[in-house]
Amino acid sequence: MTTRYPAVRTATGPAGAATAGDVLAGYLQAQAVEFLRSLRLHGESGADADEAGEAARLLRRSARRIAGVLYVYRPLTDTDWTDQLRTELVWLTDVLGREHAYAARLARLRGALHRLSGAEDGGAGGGLTVGAARAGALLERRLTLARTRAHSAALQALGTSRFHAVADAAALLASEVPLDPGARGLPAREVLPHLAEQAQRRLAEAAEALPLALAGNPYNAEALAHGLAAAPAPDGPPAEGRQDAPWHQVRRLVRLRRYAQEVLDEHEQTEVEPSLSVRLLGAGQALDRHRDAAEAAADAAAAARTPRIAPATAYALGVLHADQRHEVEAARFAFGRIWLRAGTP
Amino acid sequence: MTTRYPAVRTATGPAGAATAGDVLAGYLQAQAVEFLRSLRLHGESGADADEAGEAARLLRRSARRIAGVLYVYRPLTDTDWTDQLRTELVWLTDVLGREHAYAARLARLRGALHRLSGAEDGGAGGGLTVGAARAGALLERRLTLARTRAHSAALQALGTSRFHAVADAAALLASEVPLDPGARGLPAREVLPHLAEQAQRRLAEAAEALPLALAGNPYNAEALAHGLAAAPAPDGPPAEGRQDAPWHQVRRLVRLRRYAQEVLDEHEQTEVEPSLSVRLLGAGQALDRHRDAAEAAADAAAAARTPRIAPATAYALGVLHADQRHEVEAARFAFGRIWLRAGTP
Repeated sequence: MTTRYPAVRTATGPAGAATAGDVLAGYLQAQAVEFLRSLRLHGESGADADEAGEAARLLRRSARRIAGVLYVYRPLTDTDWTDQLRTELVWLTDVLGREHAYAARLARLRGALHRLSGAEDGGAGGGLTVGAARAGALLERRLTLARTRAHSAALQALGTSRFHAVADAAALLASEVPLDPGARGLPAREVLPHLAEQAQRRLAEAAEALPLALAGNPYNAEALAHGLAAAPAPDGPPAEGRQDAPWHQVRRLVRLRRYAQEVLDEHEQTEVEPSLSVRLLGAGQALDRHRDAAEAAADAAAAARTPRIAPATAYALGVLHADQRHEVEAARFAFGRIWLRAGTP
Repeated sequence: MTTRYPAVRTATGPAGAATAGDVLAGYLQAQAVEFLRSLRLHGESGADADEAGEAARLLRRSARRIAGVLYVYRPLTDTDWTDQLRTELVWLTDVLGREHAYAARLARLRGALHRLSGAEDGGAGGGLTVGAARAGALLERRLTLARTRAHSAALQALGTSRFHAVADAAALLASEVPLDPGARGLPAREVLPHLAEQAQRRLAEAAEALPLALAGNPYNAEALAHGLAAAPAPDGPPAEGRQDAPWHQVRRLVRLRRYAQEVLDEHEQTEVEPSLSVRLLGAGQALDRHRDAAEAAADAAAAARTPRIAPATAYALGVLHADQRHEVEAARFAFGRIWLRAGTP
């Protein structure tokens, strides 16, 4: 879980004596170096889609960490500068992540169609039914189009001055992190755990507001409770989206808490609380699955609104939608088990 | 769970001294009296559908018990006569049960459509979507037609000489149970538990052949694994039916075991093993739910094959099919918990 970054540590002495500013700067500089390296890899990848994809993944990985850590440890930084960078990193992560997200979603839906057709275990029929095959083709068309657009948008973004400003900011971060003058000298041992604790508290509050008792009761049928609900008003979120939103928020807070812990681990040069790190990782994975399944379910529902599709196609998309909403429910159950077993981690 | 039948007990002394034949005859006579009373109620119910339905329910209830107990305690009876009666009772229970089954299935599917539309909790939209409403109307047409046909078939069956022969046999049973001469004098305390134990063994063997480890793992997605499987060969069962069959068989064996226990309880004038009775009842209810949901899911799939339906209707039926298959999975999970918690009950 914890990544070691060689070389760039700037701690002025043994871990015990390091200042909060030093530790934070060390972590951020290492991530900025990663960011710049991924950016170079991406530029060099040329037409190799796999290499470009991997470089983009690493780029997003360090961008998320920089933005997250700047958020958790905000009081230690020069916020005029870092708030701006944070906003821009979120924009960049989003733009660069969409192509991958569409590809992953198509793979998920295609896999589900095969599973639902019993094609995996060589069962009856073996292949896809007409409906499942057509549903697959429809999803493929829609998501490939979305993916292509996302690819163009990402390439375009990489050419903008907005992007170059982010790259310049990362280069600055790699050499010197703009810190708050007052916070620069505070002892890391006192200040960092305190801010991580605040992140923990925000996470705990949000998680405890979730319907965990319900989610812990398997087959509660909650996630599909609006599977056939009337379409929402054009300006309102769909009923399922409203239900999912607090879980997505907890997902983001788990991630912030993980990155906060990485800074503490970096300071101590070890995993301070290995079981906490494992639990945060597990909780985050469950909520990633929750988000992925929710988005896949929404795609199946959206595809079913395509005009003039065959009833067999629509039927397969209905089964697929319900299947992915049950994945949503399963992910909530998994998260609830991790969270409750941990007490408040 | 255990029903007490007044009056008709023929035990020749204190429970300890009763013969197996006496106890069995006492139970069967009481059920035959119930059967004849329900039959009279049914004949008198005239146009009152509720009364007729309740009478038919009681009739099936005693018919199932007579047939089940004749099966478990078969060696104690005059099998030439009782095997024949058993076959006829199974036929009658089936003919008389269909109307109710279609009505219950429609109610289940209608309830699920409302639940899936979020209409229960006054959620977004409130009412049904066009697709859900049309799917509901289609299912209503199909199942009402099936129900009407079943009603006619039941009325017709009640007028046949085949039915009158069953009624005559029940009347004979109410006055004198044809027992095996050799078994007549055996002590109840030894013989009855032994035969109940055999029923238990058949149940345990069948239950242990079920994929209980998988079913005990919530959200295993097994029940929907063939949700979009290619249609089976015309002479083969559908893939989901093949998967469900062993569970249906265990459902029947649980029922036999319950009736076997009722005879033992009747003998002792108390529930011999109250916790066993509770567990058998719970296990039976879980498997009833399994059967009901499996049949409802099959109906939704069959309705979706109606020519020229709108895509929105087909989509709603797909969601409904998947929802009911998840009910199937939930019922397996519930059964597994009851069964494994009980050890071998």
